Amino acid sequence: MALRARVLYEFSSENPGEISVKENEVVTLHSEQDIEGWLEGTNGRGERGLFPASYVEVLQRDAAAAAAAAPPSRYSGGGLAGGGSSFSPRTDPQADSLAKVTAMSFATLPVPQQPHKHQVSHGSEDDWDDDWDDGVAAADEPAGYAPAGGPDFESYGPSTYRLSTSMARGSQQAKSSGTVGRNLNRFSTFVKSGGEAFVLGEASGFVKDGDKICVVMGKHGPEWQENPYPFTCCIDDPTKQTKFKGMKSYISYKLTPTHTQSPVHRRYKHFDWLYARLVEKFPVISVPHIPEKQATGRFEEDFIAKRRKGLIWWMNHMSSHPVLARCDVFQHFLTCTDEKAWKQGKRKAEKDEMVGASFFLTISTPTAPLDLQDVESRIDGFKVFTKKMDDSSLYVSATLSEFARKQMTGFKKEYQKVGQSFKVLSQAFELDQQPFSESLNQAISFTGEVYDAIGEHFAEQPKQDLDPVMDLLTLYQGHLANYPDIIHVQKGALTKVKESQKHIEEGKVEHPQAEGIQERCNIISFATLAEIHHFHQIRVRDFRAQMQHFLQEQIGFFQKITSKLEEALKKYDDP
Amino acid sequence: MALRARVLYEFSSENPGEISVKENEVVTLHSEQDIEGWLEGTNGRGERGLFPASYVEVLQRDAAAAAAAAPPSRYSGGGLAGGGSSFSPRTDPQADSLAKVTAMSFATLPVPQQPHKHQVSHGSEDDWDDDWDDGVAAADEPAGYAPAGGPDFESYGPSTYRLSTSMARGSQQAKSSGTVGRNLNRFSTFVKSGGEAFVLGEASGFVKDGDKICVVMGKHGPEWQENPYPFTCCIDDPTKQTKFKGMKSYISYKLTPTHTQSPVHRRYKHFDWLYARLVEKFPVISVPHIPEKQATGRFEEDFIAKRRKGLIWWMNHMSSHPVLARCDVFQHFLTCTDEKAWKQGKRKAEKDEMVGASFFLTISTPTAPLDLQDVESRIDGFKVFTKKMDDSSLYVSATLSEFARKQMTGFKKEYQKVGQSFKVLSQAFELDQQPFSESLNQAISFTGEVYDAIGEHFAEQPKQDLDPVMDLLTLYQGHLANYPDIIHVQKGALTKVKESQKHIEEGKVEHPQAEGIQERCNIISFATLAEIHHFHQIRVRDFRAQMQHFLQEQIGFFQKITSKLEEALKKYDDP
Repeated sequence: MALRARVLYEFSSENPGEISVKENEVVTLHSEQDIEGWLEGTNGRGERGLFPASYVEVLQRDAAAAAAAAPPSRYSGGGLAGGGSSFSPRTDPQADSLAKVTAMSFATLPVPQQPHKHQVSHGSEDDWDDDWDDGVAAADEPAGYAPAGGPDFESYGPSTYRLSTSMARGSQQAKSSGTVGRNLNRFSTFVKSGGEAFVLGEASGFVKDGDKICVVMGKHGPEWQENPYPFTCCIDDPTKQTKFKGMKSYISYKLTPTHTQSPVHRRYKHFDWLYARLVEKFPVISVPHIPEKQATGRFEEDFIAKRRKGLIWWMNHMSSHPVLARCDVFQHFLTCTDEKAWKQGKRKAEKDEMVGASFFLTISTPTAPLDLQDVESRIDGFKVFTKKMDDSSLYVSATLSEFARKQMTGFKKEYQKVGQSFKVLSQAFELDQQPFSESLNQAISFTGEVYDAIGEHFAEQPKQDLDPVMDLLTLYQGHLANYPDIIHVQKGALTKVKESQKHIEEGKVEHPQAEGIQERCNIISFATLAEIHHFHQIRVRDFRAQMQHFLQEQIGFFQKITSKLEEALKKYDDP
Repeated sequence: MALRARVLYEFSSENPGEISVKENEVVTLHSEQDIEGWLEGTNGRGERGLFPASYVEVLQRDAAAAAAAAPPSRYSGGGLAGGGSSFSPRTDPQADSLAKVTAMSFATLPVPQQPHKHQVSHGSEDDWDDDWDDGVAAADEPAGYAPAGGPDFESYGPSTYRLSTSMARGSQQAKSSGTVGRNLNRFSTFVKSGGEAFVLGEASGFVKDGDKICVVMGKHGPEWQENPYPFTCCIDDPTKQTKFKGMKSYISYKLTPTHTQSPVHRRYKHFDWLYARLVEKFPVISVPHIPEKQATGRFEEDFIAKRRKGLIWWMNHMSSHPVLARCDVFQHFLTCTDEKAWKQGKRKAEKDEMVGASFFLTISTPTAPLDLQDVESRIDGFKVFTKKMDDSSLYVSATLSEFARKQMTGFKKEYQKVGQSFKVLSQAFELDQQPFSESLNQAISFTGEVYDAIGEHFAEQPKQDLDPVMDLLTLYQGHLANYPDIIHVQKGALTKVKESQKHIEEGKVEHPQAEGIQERCNIISFATLAEIHHFHQIRVRDFRAQMQHFLQEQIGFFQKITSKLEEALKKYDDP
């Protein structure tokens, strides 16, 4: 007999993973053990999820029977213990629809949601020498030209990498409680990111001047203050390195930042570690995703080239982000050449206090506060924008991928068949060995070769023009997947402001506390809008540049064909 | 019980339609009635065909049973009665293979053979006003882009249009017999064309000076003497005419020859009549085929344009042929404007004596005779050439036709899908109404339009470049279909020479008679080689011009695409 409970107070789900329950409804429990005040169960509508343990009264107690009858809870995994890597609070049935994109249906596509592929590396001193960068595999395969043009190394929907940190933080912060209530759902991004703790005034820490992150008012609204020391960083062709007398081998990338001109060598696992640090530290910044891991063939040229390309894009977005580019851990990654200093910096980064909730403390904003209604409408507009951009990126990716495939197969074949037929005609004509037909025969034969070459050009071209566009789209799909979380944090803050205002009316909280909440929400809003502004800026920059590159390549391609044909045409002049 | 016969003398088949039979072999007869001395039957190897009636002895006579058991003879149709239009002595099982041309198999393709589509018009005064040019239909359908790229208005293999004339002539000539035997098979082109009668010295007629046709020795061998009055003739857009107060309508073509500058109006049926006259008159000249008839839709624009194109090609080949261009009936066709004179000329042409066998009387050759062995090897070489050219023309046609189809469907679709996806992306971007992204949005939208237009260009292009090449190939496939007959006439003459030489050795014929045969064979050889030379000359001219046109069009096409793309690229400059 399953464990059951009667609902004492109505509860409306606010976050994924939660279910709504009605007063007096009887719910089935999957375990009698609550998870930090939450129970998992199934409500009368058959929905399974979490609800507050204090809202229900358990009806029957038969622990032994319940343990046998109920399947192991999806929510009782390692996630709550701090591991979090396989934890996936959101499972979206629409994730499959990703593959179903067609030209006609893109407009009605839902925002695709997929469990996050990246596993967070927390790093410890002794795992540095393991080859975990390549040994563990996500279920990935060489992308090639998949018809649906799926993204390669990005994911959709809210990712889970902030979980372990925020959970730990959440428990610490639970000790001090404000009058405006905390969100009961520990799976909410607002909570996980530290946004809630910050808004409620629970974050504390000493902010050094050097750590200050400024938001300024630009022409179009809040912006991150520009990096006064802009730099770029090139990534050279990676080389294969061995250690333990050749027993182990790995790929090493040489990075040369322009501001130091001093090369450092990094492995994929270092990128992975850095990525985890950044994601943990910056709640409202879209950290670009690093290229995905690969189980097999990690020394294959194609894979190496693809990963390098992905890392170059990643580096480009990192170094052009005013906040990310300047942060300590990234600078450490880019500049540290000494092994001992590297380990120290690594430890320091892992113990960084100014992450999550405390990160918000480092933000300084213009004095004039934002109009919250205006902020809300801007955020809502951006939410619509990301959805539309995500849908159309997916559609463009699928279309270009198919176009590339067609050029590499059908187009190539057609032109080469034409070339072959001209060659066959010239061979027939060569049977007539009269001098006056010789030059024609040669010209037709040459024309055949030209068409053969054109076919080859068609097959080679997508690498030059379509692939880079698809890479860009992939990168942006990664960013777009970050934004639901970022928006969620801002929305959560806004909700707290509204709550506090209501509570003031009801006399439940004091003005100063409500003002504090509003001030801190203002900071989050500034940061969010600055990040959105940055997104649009680099989007316009990147897409302009990429479209220009695409068209230049296409023009060059057709000019190449034209000059080939002109060469062939000349052969017919010779009498 | 079927009728059977025992073979008295061995007979080797020399022509299509005949079968070989061995002495003492028993053959099955399909009818006891002989056809001008020939019987139809099946030999011991299961081959069905004709053999001389006098070579066999009929074994059993049961006419009633035989009539019931044997299927109606394929060879007892109207052909022998002189109608000839549906008569098809050769039925080649390989004709179907036409449709099976593939890239890999072309090399081993047999020379395709198809029954001739054209029906010969003998013309009489009173049928001129009938609409028989359009009313009777061959089994044709709009060609469009059939995957196999079948020829449109030409046929393969020996055609039957000479049959009725030559049969009639054959019977007349049978009255005077030489010592060198005549070919027993009345279906042989050698016989039908009048070639045999001429070689045997049976042709006679008065040749006016103006009718003389000269073969001269050119740099590469015998050539037709050039037309001293070269001209071309343009065919204007046809107009629809009506008569009988609008009861009947037809299409009229305005022809304007350059040497008269005086336009004449002709209908399709006039072309058809002229074609029949030319085919009858010139045994060793490849008369270009006129465009096929069409049953329905004969006033439809597409069809009219296609027929006009075909007539222009036809006219081009007619006017550039040194013999055809100058012949009376063609000049009459091109220049006569008076209705009464037209009818007189028409009657005269139909009563022309210098056709078939007598045509050869009009040929004057250089005095030095040709080396017959050299002639034989040239003719054999040309035979191989035509076979190879026919195979490869068929292959090129099929390939280009498929290429055209791909451009009009797949290529167009792919480029337009890319265009559509760019438009969708720009629509997503337009949701962000910040001024700094506006010009990018417009540029991407414009790029979408450009790719849409490129798709349209791909679909339109085949009309400009591939269609004319395919038209040329079709025309040449028509010529190539004429050559087996032409070669056959020359081969027949050569065989007679060899026979006569053998007979001299055996004392069966006198020297003067053998010399006469050799001289007349020499004339046929001169004419054949001159015609072959002309073929190569126009082939080189036409294919050079057409390939140049093709490449120029292709270059123009890719330049158009390039400039479209450049236009799109410029849109991204605008900041």
